[in-house]
Amino acid sequence: MIGNPQSVAPEPSFRDFSKLCVHTITTKPWSVEEAAEHFAMSGIGGITVWRDALANRNIYQIGQLLRDHNLSIVSLCRGGFFPNLEAAGRQAAIDDNRRAIDEAAELGAPHVVLVCGAVPGQPLTESRKQIRDGIAALMPHAEASGVRLAIEPLHPMYADNRSAINTLGQANDMAEELNSPFVGVAVDVYHLWWDPDLEKEIARCGKNGHLYAFHICDWKTPTLDLLNDRGLMGEGCINVRQIRSWVEAAGFNGFNEVEIFSNRYWAEDQAEFLEKIKHGYLYHS
Amino acid sequence: MIGNPQSVAPEPSFRDFSKLCVHTITTKPWSVEEAAEHFAMSGIGGITVWRDALANRNIYQIGQLLRDHNLSIVSLCRGGFFPNLEAAGRQAAIDDNRRAIDEAAELGAPHVVLVCGAVPGQPLTESRKQIRDGIAALMPHAEASGVRLAIEPLHPMYADNRSAINTLGQANDMAEELNSPFVGVAVDVYHLWWDPDLEKEIARCGKNGHLYAFHICDWKTPTLDLLNDRGLMGEGCINVRQIRSWVEAAGFNGFNEVEIFSNRYWAEDQAEFLEKIKHGYLYHS
Repeated sequence: MIGNPQSVAPEPSFRDFSKLCVHTITTKPWSVEEAAEHFAMSGIGGITVWRDALANRNIYQIGQLLRDHNLSIVSLCRGGFFPNLEAAGRQAAIDDNRRAIDEAAELGAPHVVLVCGAVPGQPLTESRKQIRDGIAALMPHAEASGVRLAIEPLHPMYADNRSAINTLGQANDMAEELNSPFVGVAVDVYHLWWDPDLEKEIARCGKNGHLYAFHICDWKTPTLDLLNDRGLMGEGCINVRQIRSWVEAAGFNGFNEVEIFSNRYWAEDQAEFLEKIKHGYLYHS
Repeated sequence: MIGNPQSVAPEPSFRDFSKLCVHTITTKPWSVEEAAEHFAMSGIGGITVWRDALANRNIYQIGQLLRDHNLSIVSLCRGGFFPNLEAAGRQAAIDDNRRAIDEAAELGAPHVVLVCGAVPGQPLTESRKQIRDGIAALMPHAEASGVRLAIEPLHPMYADNRSAINTLGQANDMAEELNSPFVGVAVDVYHLWWDPDLEKEIARCGKNGHLYAFHICDWKTPTLDLLNDRGLMGEGCINVRQIRSWVEAAGFNGFNEVEIFSNRYWAEDQAEFLEKIKHGYLYHS
C-alpha cells in the first residue's frame, strides 16, 4: 500500500527498531541502567550515552551492561566547548575532551559528539579558530584511542554561548581542513532543517566519509523555550523523512538517534514517552 | 581621545541623534502621537511606523504630524506573510500588501519592510516560491506608488511560521532575481549576526543598490523568549558597531533603526527606556 509518506507506517510485521537509537538525555529521568532495560525491552537497537549518565559509575561495566542488553553504543555526548577568553580555559577544555575520549574508549563508543562552544562577545571568527585549534590538539589522542570526533553544527540561535559552528557547510569546511580519518560531522535535523544548502552539504560529507551521526526530533510551533522544548518527530514542521532520505542517499547506514530535550516529556511517564518515540520514528522519520 | 570603540562615546557636543530612528513597536506602550512627541524632544531623527500604530487614524494626518515634529518617516512595518496553503489565502496576502503600499504612500514612507512568511509543514522551497511570486505580483503597484519593498531575512529560529528567507544571501538572491528598482533588502543585526557570510552579503546588496534599511538591537544571553526578549545595543553579544561599519562601507547612509521587542522594556517607563536607547546607540553602535 502506497500512501502519504508522512502518515503511513509499515505493517506491524515490518516494525523494525534495530536502527533506532535513543539518547540517555531524551529519557533523562531514567538512570542509564533503567534506560538500558527499557530500550532493550522495546527492541530499540542503539543507545547514545551522555556523560552525566556515567557519573559515579564504572564506565567499562556500563559498556558491558549495554552490550549485554544487545544495545549498540552509538555515541558519547558530549565534548567540545573549546572557546575561552583565557588560554588556561582553552587548555582545560582540551583536557576535558581528552577525558571524554578516554570515557568513549572505555565505554566502547566509536565517537564523541562535539558541541563546539562559543563565548558571548568574543568574535565568532576567533571562536571558530579556537575550535579548530582545540580539535587539532585532540586528534593524536583520538587516533591513538580509536575514537572519532563528530563536529555537530548547532542552530544559529545557539551562536552566543553554545557553538560558533552553525551550518553543516561550516562543519564540513572544518572537517576537510583538519583532514583526519578521526574527524567528521554529526547532522541534527533540529539545528539544520532550515538551511537551503542542507541537501548539498549532506551529500558532501557523505562523499567524504565524514558523516558520523544523524540526530532526529522536531521543531514545534510555537517553541516555548530555546533549549528544552523540542518536539517528537511528527509534532512539528521538520520533514525528517526527507532529510533522512538525503542522509541515506549520501551513504549513511547508521542509527537514527532520537535526541529530545523537553521539560514537557521529562515530566511524563518515561515508558509511555518511549512508546511515543517509537510511534514517531515509524510514522514520521 | 581614542579608546575601546565599544565603550567610549563621542564628547557631548558630538552627540548626534539625527541618524537614529526608533520603531513605534520599540516603545509600544506609547501611541504614535506620544512617540512622535518624545522622539522629537529627544532629538531623534527618524521614526519607523508599524501598521498597528495607524489603526483608527487618518494616515495622511499622522504623516503630517510626524513631519511637523521634524521626524523622517523611515519605513512602514510590515508587509509580507505571502505563503499560504490555499490560493485564496495567498491572494488575500497580496491584497493586504497592496493596502500596506497604499498606507506607506499616504504616510510618506519610502518603503514597506517585508516579513516574508512561512507555513509550518509546507516545504520551505514552496514557501520561497510563493514569496517570490507574491512580491512579483506587487511590483507594478509598488512602482506606480513610488514605494519600495524591503525583503527582511529573519533568523532561522523563525523559519517555521514567520519567514522562509533566513539569510541575507537568500534575500539578495531574490532581490536580484526580481530585478526591480523597487525591491531590495533590510539588514537586521538580530537576525543575521551569526552568519559567516554577512560581511560579504552586505557588500553585495550595497553594490547593487539593494540595501534599503538597517535595524539594530542586541542578542541577550540567555534569551528567555524567542520573540520578545531582544536586548538593547550593548546588552548582548552582537558587535553592532562592526556590522554598522560594513553597512556604511557598502554605501548605506540611511538611519540606524532601533527595533526591540521586549516584554521587559515595554513594562518600564518609556521615557527612561528612550534614554537607554540613546545611550546604547552612542556607546554600542
